[in-house]
Amino acid sequence: MGSSHSSRSLSLTPTHSTKHFYFSPSKLYPNQNQIRNLINFKSHPFLCSSSSSQVLPLKCSKAGEFDTQAKSLRTMADVHGIDRELLQEMVYDALVWSSLHGLVVGDKSVKRSGEVPGVGLSHSPIALLPGLFPGTHWNQACELSSIFNELVDRVSMDGKFLQESLSRTKKGDAFTSRLLDIHSKMLQIGKKEEIRLGLHRSDYMLDDKTKLLLQVELNTISCSFPGLSCLVSELHRALLGEYGKVLGLDYRNVPENYAANHFADVLAKAWIEYNDPSAVILFVVQAEERNMYDQHWLSVNLRKRHNVKTLRKTLAEIDREGVLRSDGKLIVDGQAIAVVYFRAGYTPRDYPSESEWRARLLMEQSSAVKCPSISYHLVGTKKIQQELARPNVLERFLDSEDDIAKIRKCFAGLWSLDDQDIVNKAIETPELFVMKPQREGGGNNIYGDDVREALLRLQKEGSEEDGAYILMQRIFPSVSPTIFVRDGICHKDHAVSELGIFGAYLRNKDKVIVNEQSGYLMRTKVSSSNEGGVAAGFAVLDSIYLT
Amino acid sequence: MGSSHSSRSLSLTPTHSTKHFYFSPSKLYPNQNQIRNLINFKSHPFLCSSSSSQVLPLKCSKAGEFDTQAKSLRTMADVHGIDRELLQEMVYDALVWSSLHGLVVGDKSVKRSGEVPGVGLSHSPIALLPGLFPGTHWNQACELSSIFNELVDRVSMDGKFLQESLSRTKKGDAFTSRLLDIHSKMLQIGKKEEIRLGLHRSDYMLDDKTKLLLQVELNTISCSFPGLSCLVSELHRALLGEYGKVLGLDYRNVPENYAANHFADVLAKAWIEYNDPSAVILFVVQAEERNMYDQHWLSVNLRKRHNVKTLRKTLAEIDREGVLRSDGKLIVDGQAIAVVYFRAGYTPRDYPSESEWRARLLMEQSSAVKCPSISYHLVGTKKIQQELARPNVLERFLDSEDDIAKIRKCFAGLWSLDDQDIVNKAIETPELFVMKPQREGGGNNIYGDDVREALLRLQKEGSEEDGAYILMQRIFPSVSPTIFVRDGICHKDHAVSELGIFGAYLRNKDKVIVNEQSGYLMRTKVSSSNEGGVAAGFAVLDSIYLT
Repeated sequence: MGSSHSSRSLSLTPTHSTKHFYFSPSKLYPNQNQIRNLINFKSHPFLCSSSSSQVLPLKCSKAGEFDTQAKSLRTMADVHGIDRELLQEMVYDALVWSSLHGLVVGDKSVKRSGEVPGVGLSHSPIALLPGLFPGTHWNQACELSSIFNELVDRVSMDGKFLQESLSRTKKGDAFTSRLLDIHSKMLQIGKKEEIRLGLHRSDYMLDDKTKLLLQVELNTISCSFPGLSCLVSELHRALLGEYGKVLGLDYRNVPENYAANHFADVLAKAWIEYNDPSAVILFVVQAEERNMYDQHWLSVNLRKRHNVKTLRKTLAEIDREGVLRSDGKLIVDGQAIAVVYFRAGYTPRDYPSESEWRARLLMEQSSAVKCPSISYHLVGTKKIQQELARPNVLERFLDSEDDIAKIRKCFAGLWSLDDQDIVNKAIETPELFVMKPQREGGGNNIYGDDVREALLRLQKEGSEEDGAYILMQRIFPSVSPTIFVRDGICHKDHAVSELGIFGAYLRNKDKVIVNEQSGYLMRTKVSSSNEGGVAAGFAVLDSIYLT
Repeated sequence: MGSSHSSRSLSLTPTHSTKHFYFSPSKLYPNQNQIRNLINFKSHPFLCSSSSSQVLPLKCSKAGEFDTQAKSLRTMADVHGIDRELLQEMVYDALVWSSLHGLVVGDKSVKRSGEVPGVGLSHSPIALLPGLFPGTHWNQACELSSIFNELVDRVSMDGKFLQESLSRTKKGDAFTSRLLDIHSKMLQIGKKEEIRLGLHRSDYMLDDKTKLLLQVELNTISCSFPGLSCLVSELHRALLGEYGKVLGLDYRNVPENYAANHFADVLAKAWIEYNDPSAVILFVVQAEERNMYDQHWLSVNLRKRHNVKTLRKTLAEIDREGVLRSDGKLIVDGQAIAVVYFRAGYTPRDYPSESEWRARLLMEQSSAVKCPSISYHLVGTKKIQQELARPNVLERFLDSEDDIAKIRKCFAGLWSLDDQDIVNKAIETPELFVMKPQREGGGNNIYGDDVREALLRLQKEGSEEDGAYILMQRIFPSVSPTIFVRDGICHKDHAVSELGIFGAYLRNKDKVIVNEQSGYLMRTKVSSSNEGGVAAGFAVLDSIYLT
């Protein structure tokens, strides 16, 4: 395994060079039974995060010529020395660190924890140590970020392409249909979005067989964890700063992560472009949100770094309290809105009545910068992902052959359900496919024998519903032993991971103001619950260790 | 009311000058009924803490010639404008800020919250806004800090004085008796404590009638809240940074508070004096501690600022895992201990068996720096407080007449129960007295008619038990309207407050290394539950606003 290192940090103290082994099964924790047991913690030392703050960002640095001479024998010996006590210490430190640094979520067992801040807090579920990730694939994912940002913007401008590509989906999926209606209205009235803001997250898995980095999906609305992801990276860097020598790991191989700052900075830049100093940024939120602290980190950063105020409202509240002024300005609860940042509105569940749809339309009609606009939102649908994967489609939107090749390289197989050959193949070998509905938020995907059943049912019914699905090549990511920490308890299991790369894009008319990779997030879950992707179920927050 | 201002911060942007009125009843919140109702929060803007970090510490600055021209009319109008919505905003912001910045405690409704970090977290109960405090009294309290530090050290060196003063207490109080036994043993073996470390907190109330700053007690063991108190001050500064203009308050009048850093720094200095780089600092803790984050802030700071490791152990664990090497070094769980920092051991409840007493003795016999030593611990007893208040006693320990006068000025009336005139007076007018047992931790004091009953009972029984009590003048602090925030809910009530001044003292033989005021803490509770002092019952954390 090659180790990656930022050229910018080569000027620092030389890294303790190691072979990166610790995620190899049965090596770090020779007695798995010891560790598989649930462990409760009581007493224990502490944590340092000092050293981590003195280092330059690794970020998207190239994986370079870092010394990785394997000192395997010595290192192996160290690893065998890691015992239950050390593990307890590390877990205790991680729990303390999380509590003191705001790496927290609402505890689902406490009723008000999704409504009232400060009550029913719990540390965020995490992986104790960062997941190994090859530096070359990390570089690839980072490089893709700005290309995808640009692609989303280009595709969003082609209203006809969106409408046509989604025309069959519209018939089978009521939610996408409503979004398309709003989109149509905007096309009809000739609505122009001159300031366009995208805060995306492109999710990837590493396919174990082909060793290819394959895109799982591109999220263009309500990307979660910009706030907490950087804390997880900071925690992992701090833990390795403390225990790295014992583990044979160098904290500098965990890329620094500034997603919360970056996203806040770009929101503030959009606010500046809107150019109304009295206006605020509207966070569109769900009424109950246990992940509220992830969002609060952005608000606090907006206030602290840019003196920009934010306002939190549900779609229903926006319907009640929002008005559109004749000059197009959106006013909510008496406050002018410069930017609408959606952390809700991506799932049909967020629109229980017409009220919410009115709110969405109201915002779309306004001059406020939408993150995302209805067009950006639609570009993120599974169907568009699949359309873009068809031959010669990327070429309609991107100029650079190089960029097109890079993007295509990360596309998994994606097919429409009107491709009968593929449908037949999926009925024969359903384990090689995932059936994905338009609906966002994970957990709706169909796997295994259910794929066959669903396809046969759709064929029999001959309904329009098949437009609501796409077929995707099933990715089989590599499985690694992982230490999960949830609810104050640690346990070891085998896990799969998904890497999300945050990307930010801001333009005003012809001027691209921001187009950057803005941080990352690893989500890791028990591999036996692989079906459903990491978004579904019980993924924990994680970061990466470059190899 | 005079406003205080640091001369060091006069170079900053001029302060928005105001009349400090906001704690006057019925002014800030014209419709009290509106606010007395419990309020649940859902949606709202956010918080900034930026500006507060750019300002020089006020700390113990003299209350100076700060412009306080009363702009009462304009200001009154502003205050009438403060409505329920603004209050909700501020509370929401305070709750978010607390969650993100580690101003947290274990929630007593969650079983494991006192044992496992990261689970069952809740924001710390707080006062939403800092309590008004006169700058002159603040200066007085700060000035007293180093004199009390010195006094404790001097008294601690007079073993005979301690033993004699506490001889009657010994008969009536089993706990103090055990402490005295350890103390006697140390005297017998001629144990010298060359490195002496005190982390004290002197608690004061402002007597409403006399306008005097009166000492409630001097804590020399296990002073709580150095970790969280500075966060409360930071929160209040941040809130006033955000809402100060509307409220007519200047955040710079909330003194900056670095108690967590200071205490960590002094612990680290004691560690340096001990001069064993391989040794760690032992935190003696209770098995269940919902205030653990207050302690964790010190550990984290020790690690981050000084690379000093800490170890958390209960007295029972120390008994099991501790050994005394022949050279006097204390080893616990295989680790050499440089400093023993007690956050337990101050109450009989912490010594359920002989095991805990063995641990205490073991530590006392060792060469480790004790914070506190048995002598320092005894100096903090109520009886010694009362003895020091007797005529000509301070003179035995302090040289400076000026210092003696300053200390004496803050002493409330303190009497032994063998002073029959005072006992008679207390039986006649019990409402003017508090009867205090030796036991630490508050909540054991006797008030009102119970004082009469207790005194009559003791007289009748003619037991030795009266040595376990002292009589103290009852202090009647001024009552102020306060906004309490607990469990995510805010309510307004009338409150009394107690100001604690943290003090740190470190010497090695003849060299005084540290003697300083190290931060502060205001604790505030509903005035109707005044009895028992703020330490008992339901005090919230608070900071001060200098007037």
